[in-house]
Amino acid sequence: MPSRPLGDYLRDLRATTPLVHCMTNYVAMNSTANLLLATGASPAMLHAQEEVAEFTAIAGALSINIGTLSSPWADAMVMAARAAHENHIPWVLDPVAVGATTFRQRVCETLLAYQPSVIRGNASEIQALNGIANQGRGVDATASTQEAATAAIALAQQHRCVVAVTGESDFITDGTDHYRLTGGHALMPRVTTLGCGLSALVASFVAANREQPLEASLAALACFSIAGSRAGEHAQGPGSFQVALLDALYQLSPDDLSTLAQLEAVHAV
Amino acid sequence: MPSRPLGDYLRDLRATTPLVHCMTNYVAMNSTANLLLATGASPAMLHAQEEVAEFTAIAGALSINIGTLSSPWADAMVMAARAAHENHIPWVLDPVAVGATTFRQRVCETLLAYQPSVIRGNASEIQALNGIANQGRGVDATASTQEAATAAIALAQQHRCVVAVTGESDFITDGTDHYRLTGGHALMPRVTTLGCGLSALVASFVAANREQPLEASLAALACFSIAGSRAGEHAQGPGSFQVALLDALYQLSPDDLSTLAQLEAVHAV
Amino acid sequence: MPSRPLGDYLRDLRATTPLVHCMTNYVAMNSTANLLLATGASPAMLHAQEEVAEFTAIAGALSINIGTLSSPWADAMVMAARAAHENHIPWVLDPVAVGATTFRQRVCETLLAYQPSVIRGNASEIQALNGIANQGRGVDATASTQEAATAAIALAQQHRCVVAVTGESDFITDGTDHYRLTGGHALMPRVTTLGCGLSALVASFVAANREQPLEASLAALACFSIAGSRAGEHAQGPGSFQVALLDALYQLSPDDLSTLAQLEAVHAV
Repeated sequence: MPSRPLGDYLRDLRATTPLVHCMTNYVAMNSTANLLLATGASPAMLHAQEEVAEFTAIAGALSINIGTLSSPWADAMVMAARAAHENHIPWVLDPVAVGATTFRQRVCETLLAYQPSVIRGNASEIQALNGIANQGRGVDATASTQEAATAAIALAQQHRCVVAVTGESDFITDGTDHYRLTGGHALMPRVTTLGCGLSALVASFVAANREQPLEASLAALACFSIAGSRAGEHAQGPGSFQVALLDALYQLSPDDLSTLAQLEAVHAV
Repeated sequence: MPSRPLGDYLRDLRATTPLVHCMTNYVAMNSTANLLLATGASPAMLHAQEEVAEFTAIAGALSINIGTLSSPWADAMVMAARAAHENHIPWVLDPVAVGATTFRQRVCETLLAYQPSVIRGNASEIQALNGIANQGRGVDATASTQEAATAAIALAQQHRCVVAVTGESDFITDGTDHYRLTGGHALMPRVTTLGCGLSALVASFVAANREQPLEASLAALACFSIAGSRAGEHAQGPGSFQVALLDALYQLSPDDLSTLAQLEAVHAV
Repeated sequence: MPSRPLGDYLRDLRATTPLVHCMTNYVAMNSTANLLLATGASPAMLHAQEEVAEFTAIAGALSINIGTLSSPWADAMVMAARAAHENHIPWVLDPVAVGATTFRQRVCETLLAYQPSVIRGNASEIQALNGIANQGRGVDATASTQEAATAAIALAQQHRCVVAVTGESDFITDGTDHYRLTGGHALMPRVTTLGCGLSALVASFVAANREQPLEASLAALACFSIAGSRAGEHAQGPGSFQVALLDALYQLSPDDLSTLAQLEAVHAV
């Protein structure tokens, strides 16, 4: 189990309010910025090739999400990932719909060369990404949790990074230690880009604890699960759920995070 | 009147959760995705020329909204519309502010060649679009409902599609049968991009019922009107209205849609 | 003190519902449009080089925010600023993070040549912008209010415009008359792009009162402060705060604006 209570990671985040360089899709930008601000990080969105490398170098972490990809953005993402790699800035890759088109597969292949600290995706994305990394091109939209866990461990070992597969329950691994996290709420998939925002939240926590990307990731995911559960208690639908989720992230205390996280170590996959 | 109760179309939508390829403006993206998710469809936003045709071909429907147009996006929209046409994927055109600049007129002219299944706009947009289709360039910002209805019928007959003119009351036609729909709430124009989202919702319903684009469009518009009325009941302003609208779309039952839609056939225009 | 009660400016805005051409960052677009609609203006977002000049010329005001800048957008912003200048359309510059990269400094330098009516930024941005205007390149992230006020007056005098420095308290000057405005709420910095939206709201008020850009700006800023204070009264966090802010702007009466604005003239800086 984690070496420190998960609440310590939230405490560190709020004490340092890390600057997180977010290169994310158009759908997710506003929502992601608000999720980070509510929790305690400081998001900045910029993507121009003229400035991304300069900016990544002064950020606490970089978060790259390929949702509404285009060629100029893909080039800028590669520049930012390279800058992160060269400056030892942690960065997170969110390979949205990587299995859906060859364009996305090619871009992710290039990005992986710059060693992300964390990869976060759903089961299908993690399986598709592992397929690419192994020269395959397979996409399985109905990926089982079991298959996704195996793919996640393979990816983590190959790229020496943390891999988080999120869904009804989350599976998190650094290739050696594996965890399962439960919680959240059934309304979460009815709100757009919560997963995208979660990737940037993971980047925020890793920015505040660079030496422990696995535990920092667990803390970020647990924040989301607990806040999601709380938001769902009184929500009437996805509109009031969104509002309540931001309020719950803002109100979440480190002690609550430590005590309410539904985390278990996974020994055999 | 419709051949089936309108609620059947909502039931079909929720049973199939169609994947809707949305190429929409930056302002509308997040809001549109949330409106579709709340109602029961599955939105995907992507726009790169490298992948739009590949993706449209696997989608249930395509929705094109020219709100924050640019040349690369216009080219990609044409590629997607062509892919929809060739693959018999239904698609919806939302000609935002088509009368405002020659750039928009030119792009819409090109798009119309790929036979949209449905065109949705406000009275001025539908009149401007009909002006283009008839080689005119006229724009009338103070378009009357009567003039817009005449333009809608002309457009529908020329392009063999459904045309929906939305506003305080909606007018919907396939060139042969005409309907008027009332409902909604005075706060709706005080929330941005609800019309844009409605276009994508129409695409979602048509995806679930490809053979009945007129009735599927009526169902989508009626969902919005009923949910809007309900959302307005307790709203304190446009902030709480937005939240309540998403909740109301989520809660709306097929039976409510069938019984509460304020729909009438229009015999003489 | 202002020549007319501030509420008169809100009355004028609502009576004319000015069309405001917003070229703003992707994060802020939806939120900005909703802030303007809630208050009573009519926002339009477009950015293509093919149409910006044509559209700016028919707008009541232009608002330029460089948040998610890129080269094509920078070129379009220059075209729009030039069109505003040539057609005597008031325009507002929001120099987001101008101190962070040389790209942003270069673009702002070019834009300043087209004489903005109002510049709105935080203390660091106004200081950085003044540094550029004086051939310096200095950035001071910990700018004091005092230093920012001095920079604001220098910028206002050099460019013959209104400069608004916003933060915990706001400082507004046209180079001759100076004001301090207090109010707002501690949750405001926990919601993304409220400052960006405020810049566009300033443009809206100036559109409705072109001859009094200083007083129109004061009215816009006071609207935000009062609505922010009210929204904070019952908010549980940044989610419910956002909702309540839109409702409060919608409900704000001209008389409340006149009587509740916490405005004082500043005689010595």
